[in-house]
Amino acid sequence: MTPAIGVFDSGFGGLTVLRALMARIPHAQFAFLGDTARLPYGSKSRRTIARYAAQSARFLVQEQGAQFLVIACNTASALALDAIQDAVPVPVLGVIQPGAAAARAASHTGDVLVIATDATVHSHAYSAACQAVGLRALEKACPLLVPLVEEGWLEDGPTIAASAAQAASAPPQEAAPPQVEVTAEVIRIYLAELIAEAAAQELTPDTLVLGCTHYPLLRPLLERVMAGAGHSGIRVIDSAEAAAEAAVQLVNAQFSLSAAPAAAPGLCCFATDSVEKFERLGSRFLGHPVGKVELIDLGG
Amino acid sequence: MTPAIGVFDSGFGGLTVLRALMARIPHAQFAFLGDTARLPYGSKSRRTIARYAAQSARFLVQEQGAQFLVIACNTASALALDAIQDAVPVPVLGVIQPGAAAARAASHTGDVLVIATDATVHSHAYSAACQAVGLRALEKACPLLVPLVEEGWLEDGPTIAASAAQAASAPPQEAAPPQVEVTAEVIRIYLAELIAEAAAQELTPDTLVLGCTHYPLLRPLLERVMAGAGHSGIRVIDSAEAAAEAAVQLVNAQFSLSAAPAAAPGLCCFATDSVEKFERLGSRFLGHPVGKVELIDLGG
Repeated sequence: MTPAIGVFDSGFGGLTVLRALMARIPHAQFAFLGDTARLPYGSKSRRTIARYAAQSARFLVQEQGAQFLVIACNTASALALDAIQDAVPVPVLGVIQPGAAAARAASHTGDVLVIATDATVHSHAYSAACQAVGLRALEKACPLLVPLVEEGWLEDGPTIAASAAQAASAPPQEAAPPQVEVTAEVIRIYLAELIAEAAAQELTPDTLVLGCTHYPLLRPLLERVMAGAGHSGIRVIDSAEAAAEAAVQLVNAQFSLSAAPAAAPGLCCFATDSVEKFERLGSRFLGHPVGKVELIDLGG
Repeated sequence: MTPAIGVFDSGFGGLTVLRALMARIPHAQFAFLGDTARLPYGSKSRRTIARYAAQSARFLVQEQGAQFLVIACNTASALALDAIQDAVPVPVLGVIQPGAAAARAASHTGDVLVIATDATVHSHAYSAACQAVGLRALEKACPLLVPLVEEGWLEDGPTIAASAAQAASAPPQEAAPPQVEVTAEVIRIYLAELIAEAAAQELTPDTLVLGCTHYPLLRPLLERVMAGAGHSGIRVIDSAEAAAEAAVQLVNAQFSLSAAPAAAPGLCCFATDSVEKFERLGSRFLGHPVGKVELIDLGG
């Protein structure tokens, strides 16, 4: 039987989770919904987020036939997982508990660092999930990282690729483009503040959790900066990868993955507002074109 | 007679416009509304923005008694000025036409540069307003600047002030803190791209319009970067200042400003969602504490 898996995010960052899922369960049918008309969820109240997320979950289950839901959004996972589980009669998995479980498996000292958006940090969902598995977590909001990813100021970002193409006739240069150096310097500043705060609290962190679905695109740069700052001993845990791994276990328990697929695998993407930015940026998160994105209306 | 002036923004960046207004009309009564529950307007459709902005305008006029409205939001000015004017029976002023008029007064070459958010640039409202006064405008979206301002990575930002206080016992240093250097480098990159694009289009710009209410806080740094890049001949026009100047003219025409105030001047601030960030960041934009912010509900 071909599993039908619904993946939900307030925007398109959750496509990093979808990417990890598609790599692990290539024969499944996927429906991805980005509630782009109402993003960002981070500035909204818990009640409003729960209502929006429940509407989105019902769309994926009732209208798209999803038999399993992955909440590929840290804010919705932090604030609305219970509400979504109440709203639909299928298994629902968030990104935070898998991230904490992966950190538990990786950490020897029991002290972990978490970087995330302002909203996720203020919810303290990672601290709670880490504490539940016997870890001490120090969280830090890094609000510049999402806009830097969306601007494409990454080593392989489109801005950089375009600059490199323009400069193709010039002699090759060793230094990274200035845009990438900005992103590296921002990471360096945030990381130094986080490590200093950990030292002040007498923590000995050996693990860093990426608590935002945009951050996997920063991972190569982050690891370069950490190595340069003498922190290459700190292991990076990607919540997107951890959630995909946990989803495979749950899907395995429910479906016979060894059976031949009964229907063609595939991907349908839906958004609640302008699909242009979704189509333009989505491929960067997914690693290949998202194809046509369908505009839907979830109401108020 | 004391004029009652309503000032509206989707967030709190419009407090830079309010600041300029309060400096020019110190005896007026001001009511400021930030529709923080529904920000950012930039990702929403014209119809939705018009509906939200009209609701906000009615609140200021019908419930707060505003006799004059300033739309201190570039997106709402670009996409909803007509809808707001239809919704309320008082004069309504946006920020875009005053910005274009000030650029017209400043420019000798007739070519101007405009930096703004993605949404404002995509609306091409500045291009249209500049064209209407005989200017050619080249617009550029600078999506990293708002988060840099909100993060406080400015010369006199609170992050920097805190770092300076921590380092008070260390010997004084010449170089700016690394956070400020990041912001300077981002400005340098955007400016270089904009100047290169102007040259490619054979424009000779002598004026730069700040088309976002967050940007006045970057002005000292922007002017330093421009001087360092040999562009000190380009004059900076602040739409917030230009709108305040235009508002004074209109208020003068309607009220007798020389008369003694009939009621105590003052400021009331309202927001539609969590007032905490508003109170925390607002003082940076206003230049002094915003005082108590009242939470209101405008409905759907």
